Amino acid sequence: MLPIAHYQQIVSDYFANTSFEKEPVDLYKPVQYILSLGGKRMRPVLTLMTADIFGADCKEALPAAVAVEMFHNFSLVHDDIMDDAPLRRGNQTVHEKWNLNTAILSGDAMLILAYQFFEEYEPETFRSLAKLFSKTALEVCEGQQWDVDFEMRNDVTEPEYLKMIEYKTAVLVGAAMKMGAIVAKTSQENCDLIYDFGLNLGIAFQLQDDYLDAFGDPATFGKQIGGDIIENKKTYLYLKALAQANEFEKQNLLQWFSVQPEDHSDKVVAVKNIFRHTGADATIKQAIEDYTYKAFATLEKLDIAEDKKALLKNFGESLMQRNV
Amino acid sequence: MLPIAHYQQIVSDYFANTSFEKEPVDLYKPVQYILSLGGKRMRPVLTLMTADIFGADCKEALPAAVAVEMFHNFSLVHDDIMDDAPLRRGNQTVHEKWNLNTAILSGDAMLILAYQFFEEYEPETFRSLAKLFSKTALEVCEGQQWDVDFEMRNDVTEPEYLKMIEYKTAVLVGAAMKMGAIVAKTSQENCDLIYDFGLNLGIAFQLQDDYLDAFGDPATFGKQIGGDIIENKKTYLYLKALAQANEFEKQNLLQWFSVQPEDHSDKVVAVKNIFRHTGADATIKQAIEDYTYKAFATLEKLDIAEDKKALLKNFGESLMQRNV
Repeated sequence: MLPIAHYQQIVSDYFANTSFEKEPVDLYKPVQYILSLGGKRMRPVLTLMTADIFGADCKEALPAAVAVEMFHNFSLVHDDIMDDAPLRRGNQTVHEKWNLNTAILSGDAMLILAYQFFEEYEPETFRSLAKLFSKTALEVCEGQQWDVDFEMRNDVTEPEYLKMIEYKTAVLVGAAMKMGAIVAKTSQENCDLIYDFGLNLGIAFQLQDDYLDAFGDPATFGKQIGGDIIENKKTYLYLKALAQANEFEKQNLLQWFSVQPEDHSDKVVAVKNIFRHTGADATIKQAIEDYTYKAFATLEKLDIAEDKKALLKNFGESLMQRNV
Repeated sequence: MLPIAHYQQIVSDYFANTSFEKEPVDLYKPVQYILSLGGKRMRPVLTLMTADIFGADCKEALPAAVAVEMFHNFSLVHDDIMDDAPLRRGNQTVHEKWNLNTAILSGDAMLILAYQFFEEYEPETFRSLAKLFSKTALEVCEGQQWDVDFEMRNDVTEPEYLKMIEYKTAVLVGAAMKMGAIVAKTSQENCDLIYDFGLNLGIAFQLQDDYLDAFGDPATFGKQIGGDIIENKKTYLYLKALAQANEFEKQNLLQWFSVQPEDHSDKVVAVKNIFRHTGADATIKQAIEDYTYKAFATLEKLDIAEDKKALLKNFGESLMQRNV
């Protein structure tokens, strides 16, 4: 077992040394472009790490890891169109740098390219990987659709919201890890447990993203603090605040979420105060802890050595950037 | 062996009796919608027919046939966005009936759903089908990109144009047939030959579409005669006319293809005359015949009974709606 940095190196070496450019260039240049923008490469790293933990040479899992990263970038390209986003990782989005049609078609190509990486494996493994991939990819589309639907609704419930972030974000984390387990040919039970570990950690991670968006340290968070509040996004914090508010706080919150003032500093301060007074901040912290513990509980059932469980737990803790 | 109508019945029964609608409805309703618009279902029919010809129960090939039709409809939904098309089969296109984002996301879901149909097969067959499917799907994207690129270029060569229609249209015909052969577990040689048969017939079919667009019988063609001329589309007829024109005809043709007059009747008549005078009409008819014969020549090499070869030949002849 090696530290995370080792897997990150393998993944970044792969993308640094692989060219996806070929003819027709207008189809493949955007593929190369979006993949070269980097990012944390968290998902492929998880695939490699999991393969290693279950006793495989982690490089055997590289094609599956690349497929996961390719899919993730496909979803970024198409989501950025839908969100009309100008920037991705500080650079122009594909539809901005090229145009709408290129972003649609290059995205389509990336989804197909992702499947092709599974062709490195023999039939049984190929089928298991592709089947898990299709199920996951469809759930990610469904999660994206729920997210779009929720923007138009004012009656989103907590279970609905949790289902949305599970599908949109967490299933791919679970699948990335399970793919490593499949490549390592470990037991079905281990495969299912590591999926649950990734899934619950993924939900905790996304909830923490909601929390940090409002209460993160501007020096370390990377994004603008209060971005979700400024855009009236109905996050877990918002839903919990509404549910736990008294009538006055509720009207106040609804009022703030019905406007988008140019100078949004008063709004961000006011809404954060409502989040605190309603106890929504404490509720989300509890939920993050619950999902993280749920992830750790599945580790106990895994049929692997204790030191490997400790490594997964360490990874989970470092991902959550706090000790729970 | 049964007549084409039998396979058409199986395919149309399947789509008439299968609902793709589930939650979230805004994701899956457009899938149901586009698939219910019908069309000739030529590709899935070819998959079933080929499986039958190679000795399988054609219903075994139904999941592969449905995958091909699902993929074809995915490409229609995304192509209609790119072409800004208001109508498809006489009905609103998905992006018109819903919106851009729905058309992108539902299209993505259809591409993934197509792969899921291969899960009906055991690992070896699954891998063969999915591998052929990925290769073909990527080529269709490349063909679409060439088509987009060619609109901006004035120096498209005949081989480039033929490659474009091969990728955009013909490879899926070849793959649809080869999938039937794979499901029937016939020899690799038979698989490759039937692919070539479908591929060459597909090219002939697309060239005939170019021909009929200008010279078809308005009573039977279904689309507006001269549509490609009105839209200045650089078809095979246009490229051949340019190549075979004298200087006067060439300038004349370039002039007509630089304008889009509101009353286009003069333009259509004039361009058709240039197509005739340059001999482009005869050249394309020869090319259609060449590709059809090329398809029929591969039949000779197939390791199946003569009566089955005759059926494939009959099918090819009826598809080309003429006796060559």
